[in-house]
Amino acid sequence: MKNIFFIGIGLIGGSFAIDIKKSNSKVVIHGIDTNKNHLKEAQKLGIIQQKAILNDLENADLVIVSIPVDATVKLLPTILDKISDNTLVVDAGSTKDAICKAVEHHPKRRNFLACHPIAGTEKSGPTAAISGLYKGKTNIICEVEKTTFKLQEKALKLFMDIGMRIRYMDPVSHDKHIAYVSHLSHISAFMLGKTVINKEKNERDIFDMAGSGFESTVRLAKSSPAMWTPIFEQNKENVIETLEEYINNLQHFKELMQQDNFSEIFNEMENTNYIKQILNGIN
Amino acid sequence: MKNIFFIGIGLIGGSFAIDIKKSNSKVVIHGIDTNKNHLKEAQKLGIIQQKAILNDLENADLVIVSIPVDATVKLLPTILDKISDNTLVVDAGSTKDAICKAVEHHPKRRNFLACHPIAGTEKSGPTAAISGLYKGKTNIICEVEKTTFKLQEKALKLFMDIGMRIRYMDPVSHDKHIAYVSHLSHISAFMLGKTVINKEKNERDIFDMAGSGFESTVRLAKSSPAMWTPIFEQNKENVIETLEEYINNLQHFKELMQQDNFSEIFNEMENTNYIKQILNGIN
Repeated sequence: MKNIFFIGIGLIGGSFAIDIKKSNSKVVIHGIDTNKNHLKEAQKLGIIQQKAILNDLENADLVIVSIPVDATVKLLPTILDKISDNTLVVDAGSTKDAICKAVEHHPKRRNFLACHPIAGTEKSGPTAAISGLYKGKTNIICEVEKTTFKLQEKALKLFMDIGMRIRYMDPVSHDKHIAYVSHLSHISAFMLGKTVINKEKNERDIFDMAGSGFESTVRLAKSSPAMWTPIFEQNKENVIETLEEYINNLQHFKELMQQDNFSEIFNEMENTNYIKQILNGIN
Repeated sequence: MKNIFFIGIGLIGGSFAIDIKKSNSKVVIHGIDTNKNHLKEAQKLGIIQQKAILNDLENADLVIVSIPVDATVKLLPTILDKISDNTLVVDAGSTKDAICKAVEHHPKRRNFLACHPIAGTEKSGPTAAISGLYKGKTNIICEVEKTTFKLQEKALKLFMDIGMRIRYMDPVSHDKHIAYVSHLSHISAFMLGKTVINKEKNERDIFDMAGSGFESTVRLAKSSPAMWTPIFEQNKENVIETLEEYINNLQHFKELMQQDNFSEIFNEMENTNYIKQILNGIN
């Protein structure tokens, strides 16, 4: 692989670009972005070597699409139209069903690999791009059987080189599971931030009293609305279901408090402490 | 100060003990704990030099009470009964109103300083105690005017020596504000953990798909139920109020999704991004 094109050169694309260039200094990283400032910053930071446009994609060995998921759904067919027969296209979207559906009948479907690298920070843009973002992180690959063998192999080598773990899943299951472990966390953090901001008009007081616990719980409320709005839209049914369960659990907790049933409050928390084992990967 | 007694030698007390000993090697740290294992571990780890019992408190220059807040309310009058006229007693509880009320008429009220050091981790016990836990962190002091000048001064020096920032507040305001920036975050994390555990029976799948975002949002769900149940009980009214607002905000978000009003979903998130400025302490 020599010519690698990034469509969207923010946190996700930029961090990929940095590590791919590190693991193979001969590649040339080309950047395509509707945000001219991002493109300029990415070039200045050395994340990309060349600015490019969509018509240049015929020269691409690999295209990485890392833009909001609504833009991916719209643009992906055009990208596949423009590439050569041997080009691999991967995406990095947090939803997979709508993206896979958008190209299911495309004549170049076999050039595309649907991916969700589960990594990121609450920051955005090329200045947020960092080396090592993907090391040890999971990359969920969907409908792997719909991609040609040769390009599957190329993609796997790429992800292995930057230290990712691979998991295979169908897009419907992906969207259902990810609603719980990622999309719901974002809403929970955003609404926690909103609740505190609404209540505490004197920000200085919040800041002084907010410990590291609040900071970590609310961290995702710093995330980009431009990235997250289309994710919630595309995964609407699953997200609403998780939200309903979350609200019911909060409501139940509140009722236990109103009933002064603190032994049950204790049990609720003790049962949930089990999350320690889960997060440690221990049974 | 020579003889410092800790009542409760877990994460909070233990971390204080380590840094106090560091900043003044001549002090002798005495530990009192109903948990004999904790006491043994604390001695083994060098966090305390001596095991002690409540009757030894007459020899204390300083007593730091770092036990669950229900135990503090019960034990604090007895502690004040047992100390000498020159002993300073400070607590570290996450609620302040009930604790201040428990000793408001005690003849030794002026020996007590009500404190809430806003620091901690989701871990507990003496093995979780670390040096530097309090550096740069805020210590909220309540009803400072009810403590004698000389002991106020001693306490301030102690907190300054380990790098804490001091803020003064009345206990009612403390409990109201802390419900938003600390107590609510814990419930939000516990119920997020519960929702995901209930839904995803195959824990391996959660672990594989959970990124750093989920991990940070759910982190507080690892916290100790023995510590948090009495906090919620003592701050019941404020916590229920914050929970109601939080649930209403989540409900509103869900309704916007059901109405496909994603431009308003965008606005909700964009407005909440303001948390960045707040957490950076910038206006």
